[in-house]
Amino acid sequence: MSVADTKPVSFARGAPSLDIVDVEGLKAAALAAFDSDPAGVTGYGTSVGYVPLREWIAKKHGVHVDQVMVTNGSMQADAFLFDQLVKADTPVIVERPTYDRTLLGLRERRGQLHPITLDEDGLDVAELRALLESGVRPAIAHIIPNFQNPAGVTLSMPKRQELLALAEQYGFIIFEDDPYHDVRFRGESMPRLLDMDGGKGNVVYASSFSKTVCPGVRVGYLVGPSGLISQICKAATNTYIAPNMVAQAIVHQFAVSGALENSVKTVRHALNERADALAAALRKHLPEAKFTVPDGGYFLWVELGEDIDVDALLHAAAARHVAVVKGTDFLLEGGQGSLRLAYSAVRAEDIDEGVRRLAEAVHSLR
Amino acid sequence: MSVADTKPVSFARGAPSLDIVDVEGLKAAALAAFDSDPAGVTGYGTSVGYVPLREWIAKKHGVHVDQVMVTNGSMQADAFLFDQLVKADTPVIVERPTYDRTLLGLRERRGQLHPITLDEDGLDVAELRALLESGVRPAIAHIIPNFQNPAGVTLSMPKRQELLALAEQYGFIIFEDDPYHDVRFRGESMPRLLDMDGGKGNVVYASSFSKTVCPGVRVGYLVGPSGLISQICKAATNTYIAPNMVAQAIVHQFAVSGALENSVKTVRHALNERADALAAALRKHLPEAKFTVPDGGYFLWVELGEDIDVDALLHAAAARHVAVVKGTDFLLEGGQGSLRLAYSAVRAEDIDEGVRRLAEAVHSLR
Repeated sequence: MSVADTKPVSFARGAPSLDIVDVEGLKAAALAAFDSDPAGVTGYGTSVGYVPLREWIAKKHGVHVDQVMVTNGSMQADAFLFDQLVKADTPVIVERPTYDRTLLGLRERRGQLHPITLDEDGLDVAELRALLESGVRPAIAHIIPNFQNPAGVTLSMPKRQELLALAEQYGFIIFEDDPYHDVRFRGESMPRLLDMDGGKGNVVYASSFSKTVCPGVRVGYLVGPSGLISQICKAATNTYIAPNMVAQAIVHQFAVSGALENSVKTVRHALNERADALAAALRKHLPEAKFTVPDGGYFLWVELGEDIDVDALLHAAAARHVAVVKGTDFLLEGGQGSLRLAYSAVRAEDIDEGVRRLAEAVHSLR
Repeated sequence: MSVADTKPVSFARGAPSLDIVDVEGLKAAALAAFDSDPAGVTGYGTSVGYVPLREWIAKKHGVHVDQVMVTNGSMQADAFLFDQLVKADTPVIVERPTYDRTLLGLRERRGQLHPITLDEDGLDVAELRALLESGVRPAIAHIIPNFQNPAGVTLSMPKRQELLALAEQYGFIIFEDDPYHDVRFRGESMPRLLDMDGGKGNVVYASSFSKTVCPGVRVGYLVGPSGLISQICKAATNTYIAPNMVAQAIVHQFAVSGALENSVKTVRHALNERADALAAALRKHLPEAKFTVPDGGYFLWVELGEDIDVDALLHAAAARHVAVVKGTDFLLEGGQGSLRLAYSAVRAEDIDEGVRRLAEAVHSLR
């Protein structure tokens, strides 16, 4: 094997590569945070999060500050929300497939999961309607509307409207889990369900700075009805007093300095390039693969066919120093023959070689 | 009222004042963190915490790195530990009085609480022994061995030995909750129960950098048997993927640069001065008050006598712009006529005036 053959290529983790993280901007933001508000940055703070960042987020979303809480990453926000709304046997709608950690969090709370098929234009709303008409009364529907993880698809405008109407009619909360909203690299941005709901309180929105600043800051947030947010803040106080003031103040300074806007541009450009390179490489080396090229986000979902044993494929790929995540991880059942490829962490110039090796692994099994 | 009369004095919150936080040191540590390990600081990391800080802590405590996990503050560490060990009706030993948030966390998990009297030399071990002999089999005993919150007392050496022997005999875990260990300002440091246990696995140790760096970094940690730590890390992954890499890397750089050692000196000096000023002011303005001057930590526990209605006193003190915490908050029952005074956040020069006003409030009720 040549050196090029053994350089590992990971399509496994949904994380940015370091070259698209603005480390210098973060350093400047850290200095600005400590200089401008030393007491706020170094003190305990409260569970609502670092107040200036909370205000910045409220303004971004055009909501009252009481509707926002800033957390240690958006997964912590999910966990707090699930703690409030999901008890044993609580019916919950999830997308099929969906983010494996969401499934895990819901299963740990012994929620009664109802997976609804995900189409190329998002959730199969007709299937959801039929489920609701059959008498199931979910407390919550977990939806990743933009560049879904793992499927990469985006919920269409008509489906957004239908979903909101169903939430209103059947009285469930749409949990709009939207970390990828700002990393769209093609097409027009879609309105958020939160905004379309117009303050009716049927939507709780979560997002994160992991994709626009960096994951290591672990800063996410929730936007929702102020009563619910206040309950969650109470629970958060009892869990950790307050989230990370230092990191949240750094994110705040990063945002107000303009570094965030530049960083989003850098990330979008790189993701676009990487998604296109991945699609081109798949067409070249795995012409039989089925996939939709996403308009944003980190992930592309590939269907190789049910005849592929994904466990064997993972091993064959690993032997060729390529890492992928098998589709079955994102489903309660099924997903054989599917893979999630994260292109966020692989530089465009390494993608072709990674896919070439993946194709070699696939063909070794046939 | 003069201006001096209306400047608020808070003995309520266990937090440092800004003048004893090394903000310049934190800025330097932040730059060093981003410069020396940009990928580690900005990436997701894992639930064990920032690896170099985890290693630093393992070395500090002379344990294997697998025995350490670094968390978002030590309260989050407590919460994770309780999630593992305390189910509904699990018998748990707590000190009487003890930290109000610990009581809350245990009560939320519906643990069966057994409060044991706290003497001037710490837990009444004879009372614990009698409880154990009566057949109670706790899973865990929560102990704040040094400068206890709220009582300010320290567990004596003979009692440490007795407590460990009981844990060994009756098979419970001592949860050594020790955030104040390094802020002793008088007398000799006592050996940790963790160290005295000598790796038998009867002790889980928690501490924090809130008192030695600053609370806003929200960095705490657990040390315990590697099997238990590994279980907790798994649960932590499902809660938040990883704790705050940015803040933990800043703490790591702060520690290795020597800034931590200097900061501890600054903090000890200030706490010593403040504790002495508080004791002197109490003797002067409230000679009837009973208290023990602590040898470290943040808190002094004052007994004013059962005839005092602490709720009324809180109001009378607040009217004079003095904040305190009533003793009843730290007990399941009792605590009438007692207060917790935190001197950590009040500069020595303001303490006399604060106590003068508190005395005025006390006397207004008699």
